Amino acid sequence: MNTVDVITRKRDGSTLNAEEIRYMVDGYTAGDIPDYQMSAFLMAVYFQGMNEEETILLTKYMKESGDTVDLSGIQGIKVDKHSTGGVGDKTTLIAGPAAAACGVPVAKMSGRGLGFTGGTIDKLGAIPGFQTAVEEQDFIDQVNEKGIAVIGQTGHIAPADKKIYALRDVTATVDNLSLITSSVMSKKLASGSDAILLDVKCGNGAFMQTKEEAEKLARLMVKIGRAHGKKTMAVISDMNQPLGCAIGNALEVKEAIEVLRGNGPEDISELSAALAGMMAYLGEKAATPEEGIAMAKKKIADGSALQKFRDMVESQGGDPRIIEDTALLPQAEAELAFLADRDGCIEEIHARKMGLASQHTGAGRERKEDEIDLAAGILLYKKVGDFVQKGDVICKIYGKNIKKLEKALEEIKNAVKISENPVNCNSLIHEVIQ
Amino acid sequence: MNTVDVITRKRDGSTLNAEEIRYMVDGYTAGDIPDYQMSAFLMAVYFQGMNEEETILLTKYMKESGDTVDLSGIQGIKVDKHSTGGVGDKTTLIAGPAAAACGVPVAKMSGRGLGFTGGTIDKLGAIPGFQTAVEEQDFIDQVNEKGIAVIGQTGHIAPADKKIYALRDVTATVDNLSLITSSVMSKKLASGSDAILLDVKCGNGAFMQTKEEAEKLARLMVKIGRAHGKKTMAVISDMNQPLGCAIGNALEVKEAIEVLRGNGPEDISELSAALAGMMAYLGEKAATPEEGIAMAKKKIADGSALQKFRDMVESQGGDPRIIEDTALLPQAEAELAFLADRDGCIEEIHARKMGLASQHTGAGRERKEDEIDLAAGILLYKKVGDFVQKGDVICKIYGKNIKKLEKALEEIKNAVKISENPVNCNSLIHEVIQ
Repeated sequence: MNTVDVITRKRDGSTLNAEEIRYMVDGYTAGDIPDYQMSAFLMAVYFQGMNEEETILLTKYMKESGDTVDLSGIQGIKVDKHSTGGVGDKTTLIAGPAAAACGVPVAKMSGRGLGFTGGTIDKLGAIPGFQTAVEEQDFIDQVNEKGIAVIGQTGHIAPADKKIYALRDVTATVDNLSLITSSVMSKKLASGSDAILLDVKCGNGAFMQTKEEAEKLARLMVKIGRAHGKKTMAVISDMNQPLGCAIGNALEVKEAIEVLRGNGPEDISELSAALAGMMAYLGEKAATPEEGIAMAKKKIADGSALQKFRDMVESQGGDPRIIEDTALLPQAEAELAFLADRDGCIEEIHARKMGLASQHTGAGRERKEDEIDLAAGILLYKKVGDFVQKGDVICKIYGKNIKKLEKALEEIKNAVKISENPVNCNSLIHEVIQ
Repeated sequence: MNTVDVITRKRDGSTLNAEEIRYMVDGYTAGDIPDYQMSAFLMAVYFQGMNEEETILLTKYMKESGDTVDLSGIQGIKVDKHSTGGVGDKTTLIAGPAAAACGVPVAKMSGRGLGFTGGTIDKLGAIPGFQTAVEEQDFIDQVNEKGIAVIGQTGHIAPADKKIYALRDVTATVDNLSLITSSVMSKKLASGSDAILLDVKCGNGAFMQTKEEAEKLARLMVKIGRAHGKKTMAVISDMNQPLGCAIGNALEVKEAIEVLRGNGPEDISELSAALAGMMAYLGEKAATPEEGIAMAKKKIADGSALQKFRDMVESQGGDPRIIEDTALLPQAEAELAFLADRDGCIEEIHARKMGLASQHTGAGRERKEDEIDLAAGILLYKKVGDFVQKGDVICKIYGKNIKKLEKALEEIKNAVKISENPVNCNSLIHEVIQ
């Protein structure tokens, strides 16, 4: 086979066959196909698209480019949850323990944050002593004993995706449904769970800006998951304002604990319970998603979800005292407040801009190799729809360096809009696709 | 400026400004922009195109990426001729001397062949002793004294084109009007002539398969030439069958001499005279193209064009005795004949397939570094429209290695079609654009 011929066929709108897709994925992963041919191919895919069959094959060969985690040593139906990435999204820290409390074995591998979106592994890193680099056997043992473990990606999972994603990022070929889908799903399929719950974010703080785009992506991902023999469901949830009130690693851990105590902000509490409930449904611990959600809410209300969180922290070497005393989490050295400059109703807290502001505080990284400040971030005192009076604190910004915080403050000024009229908040869960 | 932003803007269909185009050309030439970003950009250009203004700018910055040849030391209006490449196209060897005989200073830089198309420099290389690597001052002196010099590309001409063309070749981004135009015209504009005559080939042996495509390309190239202040004209000529009867370097030199003696095949004689005549018109030696063509025909008929050829050969160290005794040109060691398998009329001699067959004989190169066999090639005894009887020789194939010649013969079997009915030949010159 000839690389130029495959690029030409895709460029001219042909449907590629299994052999051709495998040739591109394997050749690129092995280094036989150079970056410059792969990037031309990806741009051709950007313009001509891939149909479902091609996307299934692309996902399959990307998954097969590396190891597949064997979770057969874990009893029960393993349910994985994946978010397409957002600002303030700490649902894994809540829905994971809540689903575990419902009896679903939660064996989850998570990633680090990049750009304006956070990553679960960074958040867990804010808990003193917490280990996310865990051997596979210890990981399996912990899930069998405690019902939950959340660790960093282990082994050699979908190296094709790693290489292709890095190339897409620098060649303007990120925004394509088939490429996004194959990237997410190849990793999820290699991670060894039996069922997958996808939280597809939609809005200015997400990949997908509109409901229509998010729905297309969600439907495609669900199809690809099923085509590979996994029970798959997707939730489309709003990401036009940050989720909850906390953005930044230690701040989000603290908020997750509040939610698990039943005292968290409404949106993050509602979404986390919904996700946990659907995990319970997928894990066959509830007959319907609705029953699962009710069960998850009960497990949060009776403290058993928080107990699962505590079990996880203890098992992975973390200091469980942070649950009672969140002052033991990393604390910021400096803070600034952002005040309302007039009376009114909060009309917008632009998720993407808030994510960038949080990145400026030191809570996020611009490049993979950047160090992050675990204590840094933003705490919202108001959400969209809340009324404010001039001088009210809308949010506080935490970090080390006052200059950086001032830069973040500038970004926040552009992110927040106050209206003279009352504002209705968007619904949080737009749609459930199963 | 940011490379991903420029790729994204072109991908999304925006018109790039001068600064952005310059950034891409200069950055890539300097090595600051890596191959993989340039290839994604080229594929975005393939899909979104460039408008005239963008193409003018792309050509300008590609031209400015290297040296511009200063031909001001040559008296008169220097006219360059460029063919977009075909099979059996030895017009430079004929039209060059004929135009020089009309009084036009011909200071021409030519290229080597690649793939199924030949190159003038390879053809001249078949003349024993002929030097194509000539210092710029000697080149200028020769044109002033003899009226003609044809040499290999000197100095550092349009290095951006060299680098971009090599990348396009391996990323399926060759076939785009703006990219083809900027590639040709950046070199032509840097070559220092005052006027440019373009021979845009059209048919199965050319880049442009249809008249419509060839016309679009020709019009765009003429506009780009004029926008850069050069008198520019284009001829659209047929390339569905090889031009003339000879394909291969020594064979083509021999045929060129026959044409200059007035004894050549009709098609190549006609096209060469037309090109020479238009060069005379562009060089202001004739009031109209028609007057120029009549003049060129006269210069061929009276032997003065052949004398210019002889002057050029002598001045550049070649053995002029080849003109009287073409047996002094490289002679092939082996030959095969391809015979008609039935009576009929030649319906097709597929130019591209014949070019590939010629490449198989050793006359062409697959990769830049390949050695070529100067004596190898194909000699047609019949052209489209000629009647044949079973057993007649349609062509002979020359080379070193009988196995390679047999491979070429297989290709030729696919290239030649014999019809039961009489066949009209396509017109040779489809259109003149000025």
